Amino acid sequence: MSQSYSISLDLAHATAERVGSHGLDAAYFENLSHRVRGFRARLNLERGQGRHSYLALPHDQDALETVLRSAAPRMGHFDDLVVLGIGGSSLGLWALYRALSPLGGAGVCVHVVDNTDPLLFADIAGRVSLKRTLFVAVSKSGSTLETVLALGFFAGKLRAAQLKLADHLMVVTDPEKGPLKKFADEHELETLSIPPGVGGRFSVLTAAGLLPAALAGLDIGTLMEGAEQAERACRECALEQDWPARLGLVATDLCRDKGKRGLVFMPYSSRLAAVADWLVQLWDESLGKSRRLDQTAVEAGQTAIRAVGATDQHAQLQLFLEGPNDKFTLFARVERPEPDLPLGDFEWGAFDAEFVRGKTLSQVLNAQQRGTAQALAERQRPSAALSLPTLSPRVLGELLLGLELATTYAGFAWAVDAYDQPAVELGKRISRRILGG
Amino acid sequence: MSQSYSISLDLAHATAERVGSHGLDAAYFENLSHRVRGFRARLNLERGQGRHSYLALPHDQDALETVLRSAAPRMGHFDDLVVLGIGGSSLGLWALYRALSPLGGAGVCVHVVDNTDPLLFADIAGRVSLKRTLFVAVSKSGSTLETVLALGFFAGKLRAAQLKLADHLMVVTDPEKGPLKKFADEHELETLSIPPGVGGRFSVLTAAGLLPAALAGLDIGTLMEGAEQAERACRECALEQDWPARLGLVATDLCRDKGKRGLVFMPYSSRLAAVADWLVQLWDESLGKSRRLDQTAVEAGQTAIRAVGATDQHAQLQLFLEGPNDKFTLFARVERPEPDLPLGDFEWGAFDAEFVRGKTLSQVLNAQQRGTAQALAERQRPSAALSLPTLSPRVLGELLLGLELATTYAGFAWAVDAYDQPAVELGKRISRRILGG
Repeated sequence: MSQSYSISLDLAHATAERVGSHGLDAAYFENLSHRVRGFRARLNLERGQGRHSYLALPHDQDALETVLRSAAPRMGHFDDLVVLGIGGSSLGLWALYRALSPLGGAGVCVHVVDNTDPLLFADIAGRVSLKRTLFVAVSKSGSTLETVLALGFFAGKLRAAQLKLADHLMVVTDPEKGPLKKFADEHELETLSIPPGVGGRFSVLTAAGLLPAALAGLDIGTLMEGAEQAERACRECALEQDWPARLGLVATDLCRDKGKRGLVFMPYSSRLAAVADWLVQLWDESLGKSRRLDQTAVEAGQTAIRAVGATDQHAQLQLFLEGPNDKFTLFARVERPEPDLPLGDFEWGAFDAEFVRGKTLSQVLNAQQRGTAQALAERQRPSAALSLPTLSPRVLGELLLGLELATTYAGFAWAVDAYDQPAVELGKRISRRILGG
Repeated sequence: MSQSYSISLDLAHATAERVGSHGLDAAYFENLSHRVRGFRARLNLERGQGRHSYLALPHDQDALETVLRSAAPRMGHFDDLVVLGIGGSSLGLWALYRALSPLGGAGVCVHVVDNTDPLLFADIAGRVSLKRTLFVAVSKSGSTLETVLALGFFAGKLRAAQLKLADHLMVVTDPEKGPLKKFADEHELETLSIPPGVGGRFSVLTAAGLLPAALAGLDIGTLMEGAEQAERACRECALEQDWPARLGLVATDLCRDKGKRGLVFMPYSSRLAAVADWLVQLWDESLGKSRRLDQTAVEAGQTAIRAVGATDQHAQLQLFLEGPNDKFTLFARVERPEPDLPLGDFEWGAFDAEFVRGKTLSQVLNAQQRGTAQALAERQRPSAALSLPTLSPRVLGELLLGLELATTYAGFAWAVDAYDQPAVELGKRISRRILGG
């Protein structure tokens, strides 16, 4: 039997029927499956040619076992885990940790040094006891300035405390080259690798995300099963159920043809807030390009905007409803969170909230999502909703791989290279010159 | 002597000289001070008529003393502080706490319940010991659904544990009316008030932000001195130094005349990340309006986008540099963070980073900010930079009040009511109907 997704995408509120000229019409949706078929064929052709390397990760059983084998002997020996990494080397881990960390803050405490801010360095240095702390330095190139500075600072602290680097520091980097790899070899640090073909923002399912996640006690095995299911589904599922492809195409077309320059990602779940941060990098950096693949000029890209429901109903919704009609909102709902909470006995009536009695909290939260979607539609503002059966490692694996796929499809639709980031070196060169380097 | 700001605004990278037709020309800037004078006169006239109530807060010595008097006897008796509040009732506290909390995580642990997410409720319930926890419920109206649900849940837990509500629960709400006020009176809970004229998103310098901040051990007295200095400066300082007014006008004009639909707020400081979240609500909800004050139709507003430097150089910068030229970036730099950190001895050369030797971390961070601003300018993308002398309670007070003032001025420029939020009720009504209420 062919594999399918457990997540589904509801595009009803993106149709012209619901939101008039700000939505896509019936002919568009009739044609969509044909286009998905074509893009899928292209994806499969190109992966055979060695592109889209991240799609091989869910099947890399060796890589998973390496992570598990490296993590196991360290567990229980540390109170704090400090990840030295930035961008793709921190956002993926946060997305995993915020979504899946044990309730009640049990287990090792996770910190991330993702900035060159002295207050951040000092804060984390003040929070941890070096003897009971494990550091993981993550940098694909091995020369990311922010990560190198953090490494220098904390390695200096370990040396000053006469602790052995190899006992307290692990490395994730390119398997062959780069200064971090060299440093790790010289100091006999345990080193895991990021496959050369996988870029930082697509690296959450490599050791960059998986090693710290495993050290934090997350169930990365099941996470990868979910990702594997998604990878099979992307080849086998019915075209109408191919939510990543449909999302990538619909978001791009709403941007180019209907002026929806912003993609608001609004999960109704505090635990998915960091997935929103992760998606901001994935979407912005992959699609924000000044050249198409054929080198013609373009100002491609759509600004991903992080929102969290119901929280941001009290912060950003006024703008989304009444401000410029230039956004497409992508909701995510968790149908059956575990645990759900029944709303017990309380003076609900006194607060004009008798209607919540007997409900569970997720019923309220998901009603709020529907209310917001409908309110947007009444103002002719398009939206779509991802429905997650629950928030398990398996579903999260599917969600992350699916959003990566959606980004690849959006890259096809924009005709840009979704895997490079040619502009980010410019500011670095200028900063370096300012510092006399 | 007239009072002035300690923060300054550099608009050089927003000029036509630097960014061509995407910037504002010399004639614009020549005229700007005259316009600031006119808008200032309007502000002062209207505050005399009872509008812009938040400007009175820095002078309300009684309110400050009430907060300090209420907080003092509770301090030292609790390990955890849990704030039940959403939107304006949580973002302000987070902005204060993230910016000013003691280094190393000393002191009481702060949590915020700002969503109807069962996983959030369960997580916080699992983290705290009720006996050693103080709850503060914050809601201006006293009927905010999310806050009422959290109150019902945690009050239920306190009752089940046979703990007295009055020992573990404080309230901040309207001084006269609303169900939360009534509930507090019935249960003899200590209650502080939000002045009726001050809306949620302008409430950070009321008890809504100040009480939890004081309970968390922050120096709110000095914070309010900084806010008071800003409030005096907004009436007295030289027009050229009036950064809030200049920012409000420049941002609005860049949006309307130059198509800069996004305001990227990018502090180069991890500690100001939550100020960015706070500003998103302030800017979006205040300016995102479908009617002008004269009731004519408009799609007013500019989307505030949160970014943190240097972190987001590795996430959003590619889009900002090469994607659509539809954003205005507002940087904030901290000139002398305390502590700053000298970069000690390390194998910098092996990482091709010998140029950092002898530098401090903030020199690197601020060079990164300048490099990014220059890179944006080279791509004709306008930016401006706020310069903060340091990150103290005093400077933060000035920053927050100044950003509120900038929002008021932007409201003038858009000709909208910056203090209402007419659209946010719509989704709530629909959600309620879905739940059968």
